[in-house]
Amino acid sequence: MAASFLNSQLVFASSFADSKIESQNTLVIYDRVLEKVSAEFRGWVRKYPARYGVASGEGLKDIDAFPVHLKKLAQLSATFPARKMTVLAIGGGSVGDFAGFFASIYKRGVRLIHVPSTWLAAIDSSHGGKTALNVAGAKNQIGTFYPAAQVVLIRSLLASQPRALIEDAMGELGKIALIDGGAWTKKLETSKLRSEDLLWAFLKPAILAKLKVVAKDPRETSGIRQILNLGHTVGHVIEAELGLSHGAAVGQGLYFALDFSEKRGYLKPREADRARRLLFEVMEIQPHPVPIRAKCFVDLVAKDKKSAAAGEVTFIFLEKWGRTRRESVAVSSILEEAKRQGWAK
Amino acid sequence: MAASFLNSQLVFASSFADSKIESQNTLVIYDRVLEKVSAEFRGWVRKYPARYGVASGEGLKDIDAFPVHLKKLAQLSATFPARKMTVLAIGGGSVGDFAGFFASIYKRGVRLIHVPSTWLAAIDSSHGGKTALNVAGAKNQIGTFYPAAQVVLIRSLLASQPRALIEDAMGELGKIALIDGGAWTKKLETSKLRSEDLLWAFLKPAILAKLKVVAKDPRETSGIRQILNLGHTVGHVIEAELGLSHGAAVGQGLYFALDFSEKRGYLKPREADRARRLLFEVMEIQPHPVPIRAKCFVDLVAKDKKSAAAGEVTFIFLEKWGRTRRESVAVSSILEEAKRQGWAK
Repeated sequence: MAASFLNSQLVFASSFADSKIESQNTLVIYDRVLEKVSAEFRGWVRKYPARYGVASGEGLKDIDAFPVHLKKLAQLSATFPARKMTVLAIGGGSVGDFAGFFASIYKRGVRLIHVPSTWLAAIDSSHGGKTALNVAGAKNQIGTFYPAAQVVLIRSLLASQPRALIEDAMGELGKIALIDGGAWTKKLETSKLRSEDLLWAFLKPAILAKLKVVAKDPRETSGIRQILNLGHTVGHVIEAELGLSHGAAVGQGLYFALDFSEKRGYLKPREADRARRLLFEVMEIQPHPVPIRAKCFVDLVAKDKKSAAAGEVTFIFLEKWGRTRRESVAVSSILEEAKRQGWAK
Repeated sequence: MAASFLNSQLVFASSFADSKIESQNTLVIYDRVLEKVSAEFRGWVRKYPARYGVASGEGLKDIDAFPVHLKKLAQLSATFPARKMTVLAIGGGSVGDFAGFFASIYKRGVRLIHVPSTWLAAIDSSHGGKTALNVAGAKNQIGTFYPAAQVVLIRSLLASQPRALIEDAMGELGKIALIDGGAWTKKLETSKLRSEDLLWAFLKPAILAKLKVVAKDPRETSGIRQILNLGHTVGHVIEAELGLSHGAAVGQGLYFALDFSEKRGYLKPREADRARRLLFEVMEIQPHPVPIRAKCFVDLVAKDKKSAAAGEVTFIFLEKWGRTRRESVAVSSILEEAKRQGWAK
């Protein structure tokens, strides 16, 4: 099982023309905003007779809309032999979740290729095989583990996206660097590259570091995969309450986790400083605590899907560069720490 | 991967009381007709607070109805920890397909136990991991491969079903015996048991024989699993056109395949007679060809999902007791043979 999760072939290309994506029996599901922001994409996608533009976002993932999508997608691909057809998903996280779920169940599973259009999807969500839809407003209630056969990373496509999406990916880059701690993270620390150039340069080792964790727990059964939640417990609270993007919220959540790890004595001050420097100087993430009302903070933490026992959640601490610690922590302790750090009042 | 398909634990029990099915965090999805036909089931199922009775049949498998089912099922199981919950599917093929599909995608997959209520599901459809829903009237367009953790075979439940369902399973028992040809099939040939007693006595070796094929091709990628289609090419035509039950139609399809195999010289007359004797004397299947209009016959054969090239289908012949032969055959040749046998006009 583990092997198949490492089998997603990674392809790096400068442009669509350079990407050599197959076109035979291919159904393209894409974020239709891309036709507006990228002339290159607009010209390229027209070559595919079976194409389906969607409005990205959580609405796309609503199960109520799924039967209608499904019928249209089945019609578009009616002439393709099931065992030879490919679903090509081009977009960010929601498009990948939706198209990946469709590919995983259509004819009991057809070939899937992800072409992430956002840096966040490129570095994180298009890898690891998770697909999902929402049920009655609750996120990711149904889904599958279905790694793509290929993930194609196209620099010109990523470059066509709004600048805000660069920041969005920085949190995940910092997170995976701290979790992994491999040789590449030392190069990252001292890199003079910034912004998009930094992301592109370190995309491959960051993806491989994530896949290394996923391969140890492909279906989230052993708990090991939970370490990818570093920075996410409080990150999710910030995302939900303050309306920050996922990546930006995770960036803040990482600072929280570092301070908490140091406070508990799990992480030496020197190591904590080194990690904060990576986030601040290289990832250019500014810490800016905004106090959230205590009740609201507690409710949102308790909702976290990684909850262990009643009143507790599994929190991921950093013990040193490249080593995490999973621990069940009382929600009340997290609140106390959040007050200390200025994230709760 | 293959291993997990052999990992469905088989449990044989005389009654529900004897079955030791777990009850903690269990969501029961069951054919509501069972409450009417079995007092034992009615009393037993009441112990489960999270239970969901459904009307079995193809309507249950319609994707359009799925979002509504999903919301109710999510509500019923809202308090269950995802990693500890179990879906218990009690019914025939359609209930198993529906509940199995739900279990395979809910929270990206929860524990699944099948309790087949029909002999056909007991011997065939509850094993091998296929789940499915229908899209716009087309059968099994979406689905997953998701073998149950456990398949529990309860004799009193199977015995509570209408007698017609016994005949329905005989075709599949004969089919798997001819495909497998192991020592158990010699005992089957000479068994004095009939009807329900025969099915119960040979349920286990028949299931294991099917799982042996499935394990060689769990996701239907190599084509090996197609041999389970023995008797089904013309069986499906008979099922669709004459309205016979699936199992009864497969029984007729087996006679067709035996005669065709003999006609082509693949199967020696003595071996063919031996196979026909098994079907006729032990399974008590009566051959009764009804001529189907040629155009209709051809259309239905060509629709077969196992189609190889245009105008051809993969047909499964028998070469000897326990050995099949997969071959791409022109639909026109099948029609010609059907006319010879009295199945087409």
